[in-house]
Amino acid sequence: MHANNEIGTIQPITEIGRIAHENNIYFHTDAVQTVGKIPVNVKELNVDMLSLSAHKLYGPKGIGALYLRQGVRIEPLMHGGGHEKGIRPGTENVPGIVGLGKACSIAKENLQMDAQKLTSLRDMLIDNVLAENEDSYLNGHRTKRLPNNANFRFTGIEGESLILHLDAKGIATSTGSACSSPKLEPSHVLMAIGLKEVEAHGSLRISLGHENTEEDIKYTITAIKEVVEKLRKMSPLWCASS
Amino acid sequence: MHANNEIGTIQPITEIGRIAHENNIYFHTDAVQTVGKIPVNVKELNVDMLSLSAHKLYGPKGIGALYLRQGVRIEPLMHGGGHEKGIRPGTENVPGIVGLGKACSIAKENLQMDAQKLTSLRDMLIDNVLAENEDSYLNGHRTKRLPNNANFRFTGIEGESLILHLDAKGIATSTGSACSSPKLEPSHVLMAIGLKEVEAHGSLRISLGHENTEEDIKYTITAIKEVVEKLRKMSPLWCASS
Repeated sequence: MHANNEIGTIQPITEIGRIAHENNIYFHTDAVQTVGKIPVNVKELNVDMLSLSAHKLYGPKGIGALYLRQGVRIEPLMHGGGHEKGIRPGTENVPGIVGLGKACSIAKENLQMDAQKLTSLRDMLIDNVLAENEDSYLNGHRTKRLPNNANFRFTGIEGESLILHLDAKGIATSTGSACSSPKLEPSHVLMAIGLKEVEAHGSLRISLGHENTEEDIKYTITAIKEVVEKLRKMSPLWCASS
Repeated sequence: MHANNEIGTIQPITEIGRIAHENNIYFHTDAVQTVGKIPVNVKELNVDMLSLSAHKLYGPKGIGALYLRQGVRIEPLMHGGGHEKGIRPGTENVPGIVGLGKACSIAKENLQMDAQKLTSLRDMLIDNVLAENEDSYLNGHRTKRLPNNANFRFTGIEGESLILHLDAKGIATSTGSACSSPKLEPSHVLMAIGLKEVEAHGSLRISLGHENTEEDIKYTITAIKEVVEKLRKMSPLWCASS
């Protein structure tokens, strides 16, 4: 992954790609989280293949793209029809393709401005949440991070209770990846970066979008503080240090 | 296939399904051509699985559906995410799904009227083309046929020349399946129903839509007659019987 979907960490794809190519290994990256958020250049990233999804950059759902470096051949998973050079059979989703193209073009135009704005809102959120809540932590890298991602954990609190209480205050968040929200297992990402199971269950993922304002962030900081305090009062796992 | 995409023949799916079930065999039908054109009822058809596509019934491109009878389990081709009961991973194309639903609902409402209108236009086209052009034939069944499909062949004429000349007159047709139009092989469907290669190359597929009028059909009948006569004058394969 170019950037992780849960904790927003941007991976050193350029370096990994160089190592892969020095060893004659084809290299694919999932750039679904980064296209439209940070600069993505397939040459600079040293990738042979890259996938992206329109709905992650304000384009339509139901359409994505796979970049294949010229000369790279892949085996299709589905057969018949011969569309898209035999790689993906089926009548092309023309409105979706046009929408993806337009979304990319708009994203490119606004990339620097959007990234700056989101980074500033993200940092305001992270700094204040960590400062105002005892025993709170940021999951993932502090700076090598998607402009729009914050992922916290709060000792003694279940992530599920946190998102339900925030939802009641009009704030939509998640505990891990939306893809696996019906599953109850702790996030494999948080387990992989070395958290204990109880810590991984206490995570809160917040994604910002380009419509968010400073007001939204201030409201969220206050809401998190209120909910964390309320939940800790009820928590058998929490003993206040004060 | 419930109905063939090239020659429009409606297959005896109900009977095939009964035989399949008597022998404990799961039965899938591709109903892409029939949904929205003729009545489709999974129970009456004796199918365990049925696939359909929205853009074939005036819905959006990029969305389709697979009907699975309750209790039927299938292996996914793609993995991860767990969406759609683990069968098809990926963020759901919500606008597409809604569009497919709406298209089905409109199609159902108008089904009988549309089918009657199209059948009458189709029959007018078939009867007149066969009557007005010497050595012309209908491919596929005369009556067990999609309301919107006509597929002709004309001795001594290449299908490709036919569609180019009709295109110049504003009539969009094809020689076989649009999926395989970049290929130069004769239609496997026409070969399978027993045509010789030279006959299969001479086919002309015309699909009608619910915006077509009697005027369109009259114009098309005249255009075909003109083009067929013109091409036969140039054809080394054609000796007029008169």
